[in-house]
Amino acid sequence: MSFHNKCMKNMYAKEFCKEDDKMVEVIKDIAVIGGGPAGLCAGLYAVRAGLSCVLYEKYPLSGGQIINTGEIENYLGIPSADGFSLADVFSRHTQNAGVTIVNKEIVSVKKSDGIFTIGFTDGAEEKFRTVIAATGAVSRHLGVPGEEKLTAKGVSYCAHCDGAFYRGKTAVVIGGGDTALTDALYLSNLCKKVYVVHRRESFRGANLLVNRLMQKENVELVLNSRVTEINGENTVSSVTVESVADGAVTEIKTDGVFIAVGITPVNGLFKNLAEVDDAGFIKAGENCKTSLSGLFAAGDLRTKPLRQIVTAVADGANAVHSAEEYLR
Amino acid sequence: MSFHNKCMKNMYAKEFCKEDDKMVEVIKDIAVIGGGPAGLCAGLYAVRAGLSCVLYEKYPLSGGQIINTGEIENYLGIPSADGFSLADVFSRHTQNAGVTIVNKEIVSVKKSDGIFTIGFTDGAEEKFRTVIAATGAVSRHLGVPGEEKLTAKGVSYCAHCDGAFYRGKTAVVIGGGDTALTDALYLSNLCKKVYVVHRRESFRGANLLVNRLMQKENVELVLNSRVTEINGENTVSSVTVESVADGAVTEIKTDGVFIAVGITPVNGLFKNLAEVDDAGFIKAGENCKTSLSGLFAAGDLRTKPLRQIVTAVADGANAVHSAEEYLR
Repeated sequence: MSFHNKCMKNMYAKEFCKEDDKMVEVIKDIAVIGGGPAGLCAGLYAVRAGLSCVLYEKYPLSGGQIINTGEIENYLGIPSADGFSLADVFSRHTQNAGVTIVNKEIVSVKKSDGIFTIGFTDGAEEKFRTVIAATGAVSRHLGVPGEEKLTAKGVSYCAHCDGAFYRGKTAVVIGGGDTALTDALYLSNLCKKVYVVHRRESFRGANLLVNRLMQKENVELVLNSRVTEINGENTVSSVTVESVADGAVTEIKTDGVFIAVGITPVNGLFKNLAEVDDAGFIKAGENCKTSLSGLFAAGDLRTKPLRQIVTAVADGANAVHSAEEYLR
Repeated sequence: MSFHNKCMKNMYAKEFCKEDDKMVEVIKDIAVIGGGPAGLCAGLYAVRAGLSCVLYEKYPLSGGQIINTGEIENYLGIPSADGFSLADVFSRHTQNAGVTIVNKEIVSVKKSDGIFTIGFTDGAEEKFRTVIAATGAVSRHLGVPGEEKLTAKGVSYCAHCDGAFYRGKTAVVIGGGDTALTDALYLSNLCKKVYVVHRRESFRGANLLVNRLMQKENVELVLNSRVTEINGENTVSSVTVESVADGAVTEIKTDGVFIAVGITPVNGLFKNLAEVDDAGFIKAGENCKTSLSGLFAAGDLRTKPLRQIVTAVADGANAVHSAEEYLR
């Protein structure tokens, strides 16, 4: 290639400018925002496709939610790994393949004249042709007194991460979906006693899980009830439970409280750019295309039937495939 | 549990019968047909969900198409593995988790009164509540000398899988449909030079793709020509090309040969049970649900945007998720 001016476009209509006597690409192909399994796989597929790509992860460690996950046994090909190690393996795979991971927090994403401009906390901006949104989701909080104060001091949002600390002790699981039921089953193999507190009469989660739970002698279901307070000074000592039916208040002594009341998408950068569903997840099918052309949503952030590491990773590949199609 | 009769149903309506004084489950939850990445992940997710499951693979080794694949570098978390080893890792993970893999060929799948009956070559039959069809697809071969010998030694059937190995090198793409054109575009971002050899005067694939390809300076279209031989000892060195017009023979030196003359779904057992598209792929979305309730299609066999190991594995998880929902 030869360049006659300070700035020019090459045959792919990519813009280059002269900086320190080197021609530097001004507008890169793909910004991947979020370094969980979806984002990391997107980066991997992007560089393998010969696309220019930067992956932005606001935390110093990539991996997303799995960093705080205990043992993981359902990612085919890796029979057993703790989340932290798996995050490290994923991250190194991606970086060794040539993906640049930049640990900067993004405060804005805008699209104008077909180009995305990404703004950072320090006021700097970068331009990209496409954006893959992979900021994931976070566990929902109960919002009751004692919850924040006692988080990581008896209050946990991940039974698989922290369950082992409650071996031979008592745990309260709060929630009625698959996650709550699965957490309770997991804990029933570790704890002396597990209470499941749910505000409705029946569970939203799989019957199979409910039936299995009912066969556990150390599990007690506390239905039509809600936890109104988590008590304790430096560690959890009990939860206050109120009957939804008659308002009666009881106290359940416990060592641990596992909150499993759902997840919230981290959609702040994108919710005004693309359509979201009632819960705030970005509307996108298997091909990860959102309502805004050039913006793709991958992983837990998008509307999808099953949020798992394997489905997030597949999204990364599909999002890049759709981005390639768009860039052509 | 106590049983009063020779046969009975338990609380999940599963039927058990007495055999040798033991109660044996007569109708299992899930038959997974096909032991590639989709089937193996389906098995893993099924046993982890507490469902009874048998995985049928007609060959003695599970792994499907990846068994015959060379180096694989795009399965996140496993930076580099030959296909045979990866197949082995997948298969052992699944079996150690408790999945029974039976190496029997299935000749028929029927559904009657909500139950699937699977017939084997020896006339035996087994009954299941759901079936996950994961028999995959096979790449169409050219059928020229050198093709078989040099497969995974320079001959590839998947540009997205193997393209990255030819960065800065020369590649020949054979075919004239959308896949061939997309492969050539993909490779043009990676390779020094890409030849597209097609036996007709014009491409079957989308004009849009053809136009884009013609703008690429490193792409050369070799029309009205067919590859008659792939040359090389341990790796590909060239292809022999014959003009369809005048029979003239030339040689193109190349490092890689990408054969993109189509893939054929292995749909024989299912095409009369569920809707298929024009090419024979079983119509099913991300949730893997087919037009026949209780039958799910996972992996390359179903209609989907991108056929990769990661997307097949995700299908395995999604198919079981849908099967669980159906079984409830």
